[in-house]
Amino acid sequence: MCQLLGMNCNVPTDICFSFEGFARRGGETDEHKDGWGIAFFEGKGCRTFMDVQPSADSVVSDLVKHYPIHSMNVIAHIRKASVGAVRLENTHPFKRELWGEYWVFAHNGDLFDYEPVLNGCFQPVGTTDSERAFCALLQHLRERFAERPSIEALCEAIRDKAGQIAQLGTFNFLLSNGEILIAHCSTDLHYLIRQHPFDKAELKDLDVSVDFKQVTTPQDRVAVIATEPLTANETWTRIEPGQCMIFRNGAVVECFKN
Amino acid sequence: MCQLLGMNCNVPTDICFSFEGFARRGGETDEHKDGWGIAFFEGKGCRTFMDVQPSADSVVSDLVKHYPIHSMNVIAHIRKASVGAVRLENTHPFKRELWGEYWVFAHNGDLFDYEPVLNGCFQPVGTTDSERAFCALLQHLRERFAERPSIEALCEAIRDKAGQIAQLGTFNFLLSNGEILIAHCSTDLHYLIRQHPFDKAELKDLDVSVDFKQVTTPQDRVAVIATEPLTANETWTRIEPGQCMIFRNGAVVECFKN
Repeated sequence: MCQLLGMNCNVPTDICFSFEGFARRGGETDEHKDGWGIAFFEGKGCRTFMDVQPSADSVVSDLVKHYPIHSMNVIAHIRKASVGAVRLENTHPFKRELWGEYWVFAHNGDLFDYEPVLNGCFQPVGTTDSERAFCALLQHLRERFAERPSIEALCEAIRDKAGQIAQLGTFNFLLSNGEILIAHCSTDLHYLIRQHPFDKAELKDLDVSVDFKQVTTPQDRVAVIATEPLTANETWTRIEPGQCMIFRNGAVVECFKN
Repeated sequence: MCQLLGMNCNVPTDICFSFEGFARRGGETDEHKDGWGIAFFEGKGCRTFMDVQPSADSVVSDLVKHYPIHSMNVIAHIRKASVGAVRLENTHPFKRELWGEYWVFAHNGDLFDYEPVLNGCFQPVGTTDSERAFCALLQHLRERFAERPSIEALCEAIRDKAGQIAQLGTFNFLLSNGEILIAHCSTDLHYLIRQHPFDKAELKDLDVSVDFKQVTTPQDRVAVIATEPLTANETWTRIEPGQCMIFRNGAVVECFKN
């Protein structure tokens, strides 16, 4: 399996603290050593860093740990390969353009014998079930809407398709277009929202802490979503199996259950 | 304007030497300081590093200069903004998926009042004439071929569309799908092919040289394409205006002129 990390904020924020703990799980404190990737939205633009090396000792992940990139939507993934070899084209997150926006997707879980009928608009480059599911999801959205609809309509369409795909296995995923971040839970996904009054947070995977009071303003709000909680002293909320939560500006704006 | 750098090889090769000279032109030895980007194909996968900071002093370009990524097709770009603000979404190279392959594109030149009719399959995220041209080119290929055709048919289709777009301004570009690298010249583009017997090469933009005899085998072959020659002691061939050259495995496999 794999692990997911997402961040959605109301002000551009760096993810160095969370990523430092998360990256250790890629070959050091946990077994997810078959590559990793992270996508940062900056305005409408989106840049991705990825590597087939374990995140715990990749030169590129060292850069991401220490170079603060300020973003309102981030999706990261560490991989333990199940379907698809350890190759760059099988490394999450995947990115495609739809309606003149970048869409980024990372998945945790297996979808058994999943071979969706794809019409050619979005085709997988690699051989993972995850990328096939992403293509099927985007195709569904594109067939349903010629341009980007309201968030409500978008959520309804995603609920339908995600519910359908989730019947074939485990479909924990994070999806973002740079404005909203969608977290769909089949089995394991947790979140927390950091906001005023901020406090100190201590990583679980290494002896590092940060006092968010020192680096925030009272207006800041940051949602962090992760397969397993990243900090030891904060209260993480478990997302229920079958539940899908939509974050915007660091807050939950929609929540539905299949 | 901007500058382009491309590499196409018959064995995975790092571009550290060439990129080190090229990156200096982004704010140090030349004025192309409005962001930069570089895409590396690794197998079918493709990873891009980019930044809106000048390449001469970007933390991310420091990584690319010193971390050898071995690739058979690389496209890099340093930007001097003309059409489109200095923002990540306007930073080249652009990447899209077509026929289950990633396609990467970088452009040098201005296309005046270029507003192609796009059917929605490929839409620009940013506001550059370059990304619009890339979308129009991919749309043309997708309309003409349901799956990837022969290289000959592909070249013919690209020649038609590139010739048409080039009438609207300056259209120097590099385009690759990870197998071939296409270099289209409107005004300025040079190339050289390094092969056995290898020799020493000296950068023009800083006092650095490399003796390729020490780091190659006699079978290696590397084509380097750049807006302006990168080395002082090698013979670069100017690509003629209107000419388009297709490189594969470090050699020219097709060449046509509009």
